[in-house]
Amino acid sequence: MTYAVILAGGWGERLWPMSTRARPKQLLSLTGESTLVGDTLLRIATLVSLPDALVMTSGTLKGRMVEELAPIPAHRIIGEPQAKNTAPAIALAAKLLAAEDSDAIMVVLPADHVIGDDDSFRAAIELAVGAAETKRALVTLGIRPTRPETGYGYIRAGSSCGLDGVFEVESFEEKPDLERAEGYIEAGGYFWNSGMFIWRADVFLAELERRLPDVAAALAGVSCGPGDAGFDDELVRFYESVEGVSVDYGIMEKADGVLVVPTDFGWDDVGAWPAVARIWPGDDDGNTVRGDALVMDSSDCIAYSESGTVAVLGMSGVVVVRTADATLVIPKDRAGDVRRIVAALRTRNGK
Amino acid sequence: MTYAVILAGGWGERLWPMSTRARPKQLLSLTGESTLVGDTLLRIATLVSLPDALVMTSGTLKGRMVEELAPIPAHRIIGEPQAKNTAPAIALAAKLLAAEDSDAIMVVLPADHVIGDDDSFRAAIELAVGAAETKRALVTLGIRPTRPETGYGYIRAGSSCGLDGVFEVESFEEKPDLERAEGYIEAGGYFWNSGMFIWRADVFLAELERRLPDVAAALAGVSCGPGDAGFDDELVRFYESVEGVSVDYGIMEKADGVLVVPTDFGWDDVGAWPAVARIWPGDDDGNTVRGDALVMDSSDCIAYSESGTVAVLGMSGVVVVRTADATLVIPKDRAGDVRRIVAALRTRNGK
Repeated sequence: MTYAVILAGGWGERLWPMSTRARPKQLLSLTGESTLVGDTLLRIATLVSLPDALVMTSGTLKGRMVEELAPIPAHRIIGEPQAKNTAPAIALAAKLLAAEDSDAIMVVLPADHVIGDDDSFRAAIELAVGAAETKRALVTLGIRPTRPETGYGYIRAGSSCGLDGVFEVESFEEKPDLERAEGYIEAGGYFWNSGMFIWRADVFLAELERRLPDVAAALAGVSCGPGDAGFDDELVRFYESVEGVSVDYGIMEKADGVLVVPTDFGWDDVGAWPAVARIWPGDDDGNTVRGDALVMDSSDCIAYSESGTVAVLGMSGVVVVRTADATLVIPKDRAGDVRRIVAALRTRNGK
Repeated sequence: MTYAVILAGGWGERLWPMSTRARPKQLLSLTGESTLVGDTLLRIATLVSLPDALVMTSGTLKGRMVEELAPIPAHRIIGEPQAKNTAPAIALAAKLLAAEDSDAIMVVLPADHVIGDDDSFRAAIELAVGAAETKRALVTLGIRPTRPETGYGYIRAGSSCGLDGVFEVESFEEKPDLERAEGYIEAGGYFWNSGMFIWRADVFLAELERRLPDVAAALAGVSCGPGDAGFDDELVRFYESVEGVSVDYGIMEKADGVLVVPTDFGWDDVGAWPAVARIWPGDDDGNTVRGDALVMDSSDCIAYSESGTVAVLGMSGVVVVRTADATLVIPKDRAGDVRRIVAALRTRNGK
């Protein structure tokens, strides 16, 4: 059977102050009524059994996720006691699913991405599930680039694997500089690394054994299933002992025979404020104005208020965001530095 | 006797959102514990009898002023039913004081200016009072310019009037462009028009008769004194009928024999946000940071919060102000355009 594994940890700090630890990005409604994590679940609902999905989130968010993701039983929403990046979370999900179903196929999806065309998305997932079964390979979705983005890693596709629309991965490329990114677009055959993975749980666990034996070893201590009496203690011990590593770095970049399904369904990871301008429509001057915001003599700005009035005059390429607690002002082209603000405020507030 | 006449109308819209109609600039504490209007009163307290002062304010602010200016009896705090600029307010004060004291000398002071050296200020006022008595002239204080400010009118001083430190006014000059302002500084003998006036009430009323006969005629309907039973009705009728005109344009620029006392006591009218940076100390990068504000990789900015956190990164020469109700973001060199924001918000909010 096919199982959804939703990665719903983290909080999207580069979207501060709209996102905060208490109100993380995956619980925001950026495109409509539902939250990003709710959208993620709905999008996959026809392909998997939602009550059998697993959601990996942070311990502090578990309660909120249980409310938000009603179709999923509380015990299948796993609150990670510590943040240890993606490999341990995916490894744990793989072990739990393999124990339930020796033929389990996992569809691993980040909870905080935006997707424009849900039908194309589902078609790509079905193709990838087929490939993961037939080829017993690790499969990832590659997004056809629409701009020379320097904020994403790229996947270089090679020859067809023999299945229509599925290719061998030639290499994973780190986030490039602009010149390199432009080269990728010109050359063709390069795709954004979406962080969406499809594979048999047992195939992944075998690869884990080879590439991240320490993670595999830590996993040996997990013998209960979610909902079993001893599970929470095992969870704490696993996260205490396991090293934090990303599945990209720890597995995908090193594994052999990885496959990619090139896709084109209007994907955005909404990683930072400029992405918000991509998903919220702008005015004729390129200003994205949302909430009680007044923008005069300005261009290419984001002005967003969810509490009180924001007034911006004579600015260009600037992000202005106001929430009940804070106001952010930063040039769009330095939007990644919101992390530095978050870090500085954390230090200042002594936490 | 010498009487203080405090002009405490208006609300300082170019300091929005720190100042608002409900919390006008003259009731803000910009330099210390007291409000600007409170400072204005204290500064003059040794030179006049405070209980005999007159305060001209807007009707909606009268209650607040009565609280703030405890030494002044409520009936001497006059709430103008309509805003009609400075000439009608000063004319009314002149008429009321002349009726009480035929030798009354008025010291007319805006309520929302900042003065660095109170002793020099008082010395200048005493000099001006002496000149107003001896010469029976309209006297104004001129501020020695410290920069080629284009936001103020200038007074060109001529020959000595025969009293030490008091000069005939050669001309009043409109707000100049930068080149002209630089020329004034180079030439010397030009002073900023401070809006502070000293004269005998009867001398002013005679000049009013000549220069603004319509205002003088409207004033004829005022026969009661402040505190008399019929005064409020006369006040309403006076403000209904009188034209709005400034004392600078209506009287000073046209009158003969105007005198100026050049002064140098660290004056600032705090007219707009850049002035706030002059009176609040800045850091090594020229940033003025006040309240819960974090400023990184920025220079020459004002970051002020009185409610919630303000975070500014990678900006230069920008004003960022956050209050409980609003956030303003505007380049320092366009700070005068805050008026346009205020007007646009008023239109939008339908008032």
